[in-house]
Amino acid sequence: MDIQNYMQALGQQARTASRALSRAGTNVKNHALRTIATEIRAAADTLKNQNELDLQAGRAKGLDAALLDRLELTDARIEGMAEGLEQIAALPDPVGEISNMNYRPSGIQLGQMRVPLGVIGIIYESRPNVTADAAGLCLKSGNATILRGGSEAINSNKAVAACIHRGLERVGLPTAAVQVVETIDRAAVGELITMTDYVDVIVPRGGKSLIERVSSDARVPVIKHLDGICHVYLDAAADLDMAEEIAFNAKCHRYGVCNAMETLLVDSAIAGEILPRLQQRYAAESVELRGCELTQIILTDINAATDEDWDTEYLAPILSIRIVDGLDEAMDHIHQHSSGHTETIVTEDYARSRRFLAEIDSSSVMVNASTRFADGFEYGLGAEIGISTDKIHARGPVGLEGLTSQKWIVLGSGQIRS
Amino acid sequence: MDIQNYMQALGQQARTASRALSRAGTNVKNHALRTIATEIRAAADTLKNQNELDLQAGRAKGLDAALLDRLELTDARIEGMAEGLEQIAALPDPVGEISNMNYRPSGIQLGQMRVPLGVIGIIYESRPNVTADAAGLCLKSGNATILRGGSEAINSNKAVAACIHRGLERVGLPTAAVQVVETIDRAAVGELITMTDYVDVIVPRGGKSLIERVSSDARVPVIKHLDGICHVYLDAAADLDMAEEIAFNAKCHRYGVCNAMETLLVDSAIAGEILPRLQQRYAAESVELRGCELTQIILTDINAATDEDWDTEYLAPILSIRIVDGLDEAMDHIHQHSSGHTETIVTEDYARSRRFLAEIDSSSVMVNASTRFADGFEYGLGAEIGISTDKIHARGPVGLEGLTSQKWIVLGSGQIRS
Repeated sequence: MDIQNYMQALGQQARTASRALSRAGTNVKNHALRTIATEIRAAADTLKNQNELDLQAGRAKGLDAALLDRLELTDARIEGMAEGLEQIAALPDPVGEISNMNYRPSGIQLGQMRVPLGVIGIIYESRPNVTADAAGLCLKSGNATILRGGSEAINSNKAVAACIHRGLERVGLPTAAVQVVETIDRAAVGELITMTDYVDVIVPRGGKSLIERVSSDARVPVIKHLDGICHVYLDAAADLDMAEEIAFNAKCHRYGVCNAMETLLVDSAIAGEILPRLQQRYAAESVELRGCELTQIILTDINAATDEDWDTEYLAPILSIRIVDGLDEAMDHIHQHSSGHTETIVTEDYARSRRFLAEIDSSSVMVNASTRFADGFEYGLGAEIGISTDKIHARGPVGLEGLTSQKWIVLGSGQIRS
Repeated sequence: MDIQNYMQALGQQARTASRALSRAGTNVKNHALRTIATEIRAAADTLKNQNELDLQAGRAKGLDAALLDRLELTDARIEGMAEGLEQIAALPDPVGEISNMNYRPSGIQLGQMRVPLGVIGIIYESRPNVTADAAGLCLKSGNATILRGGSEAINSNKAVAACIHRGLERVGLPTAAVQVVETIDRAAVGELITMTDYVDVIVPRGGKSLIERVSSDARVPVIKHLDGICHVYLDAAADLDMAEEIAFNAKCHRYGVCNAMETLLVDSAIAGEILPRLQQRYAAESVELRGCELTQIILTDINAATDEDWDTEYLAPILSIRIVDGLDEAMDHIHQHSSGHTETIVTEDYARSRRFLAEIDSSSVMVNASTRFADGFEYGLGAEIGISTDKIHARGPVGLEGLTSQKWIVLGSGQIRS
C-alpha cells in the first residue's frame, strides 16, 4: 500500500473512532486511561526490550548522548507514563460543559457547549513517553489521535501503542481512537498535515526546525510553540530584593526550558545598584553575561551583546542584559525581540504595572513573578500538550481545554424567524 | 515599487498602528467610529461619484446585473454604512476584559485578559459597504486592518477609505489603522495571506471559490466560512404543527443565505402525515422538491434526489428530502453530508434532543428552532464579520470577540519557582 493510501486509511479510521469517543462518557474515558496505565506497568519488560532495539539502532547510527538519553525508557519513565495517565484521569472532563445559556428576545435559549476538536495529529521527536502523554490528553478530551513519533523510536512507540490498544479494547472503545503511524517514511508527515478531511488540528512537539517545517507545509491548522525568548524588566520602582530573586530564578532555576529568561532589561535608574548584586549571583552559577554598552560600563568584565543576542533563545547559562530608559523603551525592546511567550515586569508602581499588563502582547504577562511560572501545571491545567505562541485558538500553556472547541446550542420551543 | 515591497510596507505600518490601537481607550475608539459615520454621510455625493466610475467600468466589462447591484452605493446603503458604524460604537468593548482571576497554590494570582489579535487582513468581493463594516469591527476590537476588496470596486473602496482616514485623523488615531490595498494586482492577495510577520489572521468574505483559494494558499491563519448545507430533522416525536412551521421557515424565509435549510430529514414514522402537509406549503412558494425513493412514494409527483443533491448548497427555492429510520440514521446522514454550519432537530423527546445536541458536530445545533436563527444579530453579537465553519478559534457567527485573543496574566508579590 502506498503512503498516501495508508495515511488516508488511518485518517478515515480516526474520524470514525472520533465519533465514538465524542459520545464516550467521562467514566468510560477515565476507566480507559487507568486501564492503559495498568497495561503499561504490566508490559514494562516488553517496553524495555523494544526500546533496547531502538537504542541499539541509535548507537549504531551514532546518535549523540543527549538524544539517546531522551530515547531511553527506564523503569522510572515507564512508571511516569502510567502515573501521567492516572493524573489525566483525575482531571475534570472538559467535554459537554455548557456555558452562557441565556434567553434571546426571540425566545430561543442560546449557549455554548464544549466539544472535542475531532482528530488530532501529533508529530514529535525521540521521546517515546510522549506517545502515552499525548494519547492520554487527546483521549480525555474526546479526540482521536494519530501519532507520528521519531523514526529512531519506532519500536518503542509501537510497544506503547500496543498497551494503549489493549486498554481501549478492554473498556470497549475503538482501538483506532489512538493510532501510531507505523512507517518511518517521511512522506507520511506530509500526508498527515494536509489531510484536512480527516485531521482537525496538528500539534508538533520538538525542536524549532521540526515545528517550522510542519507549520510551513501544513494545510491543517497547527497549534505550535516556537521560541521562548522571555524577558524580565526591572522597573525603576522595583523592590530591589524582589528584583534580584526574580531575575535570578527566571534565569537559573532551569536553563533548557522555554520559560527561562533570556534577556534582562534594567531601568537605568536602578542599574548601578542592582546589576552588581545580580552579577555576583549569576557568577556563582557560572552564567555568562552579555551586556549592552551601558551595562558594560557598570559590569566592566563582561562580554558585549551583539544584535543577534537579543533574538536568541540560549536555553543555556547565558544571559543578555540591556539598560533601558523607562517603561516605553523596555516595551519597545520586547515588542521588537520577544517571541511572544512570557514577559515579567518587577515594579511597585501601579500605573506602570497596568500598562505592562495591557500592552505587552505575549501569551503570559506577569507582574512581580518569575517567568518560570508559565507552565500548565503551575497554571492548574493539570497537564499540557504544549505551550502555544500562536494568538489564534489556544494561547500559552495548552491543556485539555485547548484540545476542545465550543459550538453554539439553541433550545427553542418552535421559534421561527419573522 | 513592486507589489511585495508595497504590501510589506502596508504590513509594517499596520503592525505599528496596531500597537496604538491596542492602547486606545473605549471612548476614543467609539468616538472614531461615530466620526467616521459623520464623514461618510458628509461624503455621500463623492462616494456616489466614485462608485459611478466603478459601475461604468463594470457595465463596460459586461458584469452581470446581480454583481452590478452588489457594487452599487445607493443613498440607503451609504446611510446603512454610517448606521452600522454607530451600532458598532454602541457595542461593549471586548478588549481588556479580565476573567477567571484566581490564586494558585504558589501564591500567584492567575487570570486571562482579552486582547486584540493585532492585524487582520480582510479579502472580499464586490460590495464596497464591507469596507466600512469590516473596518469598524476591527477598529472596535482594537485591531489594525488591511482591506483588499474586489478590483471592480476599487474607486468606491478608496473613497470609503478616505472617509475612514479623515475620521481617524480627527480623533488622533493613526490612519494606518485601516488601510485599503490600492492596487488591483492579484499578487497583492498572495502577499497579504503569507505575511506572517505582519498579519495575524485573514478573513475572506465572498464566494466559495475565493475562500477555497485563500485558505489553500494562506500561511496566515484563516477564519473562514465555506458551505452552509443545513439540515432539519423531523423526529418521530415531533409536534407536527411545530415541525411544519420550522421546516417551512428554515427553507422559505430567505433562500440565498447560508443558514437556510437545504436538506430535510424526516423520520419514517411521521413522513406519511407531515410530508403532504409540507408539500402544500412549499408548493405555494414554488419550492422544487427532490426526494429519496421513499419520499417519492409518499409525494408521487416530485423529482428524484441524486447523490449530488445531499452535498449541494442550493441557495435557491430547491429542497432535498430524505426519509430516515430513526435518530441514528439521521445523524449519520448529517455527519456525512453536513458542512458543519447549523442543524436542527424537531422533537418532544428528551433523550433524543440531548443526543442530537451532544453528538452533532456543527457550529450551531438546535432543538425546535429554525436554522435561520444562526446569525450574529440573533445571537446578540451585535454584528458579525462572518460565520465560521472552522472548529479552531472562532466557530459559528464571529463578532467582536472572535477578533480577539486571550492572554494569561499573572499578578505576583515576588513569587519564584522552587
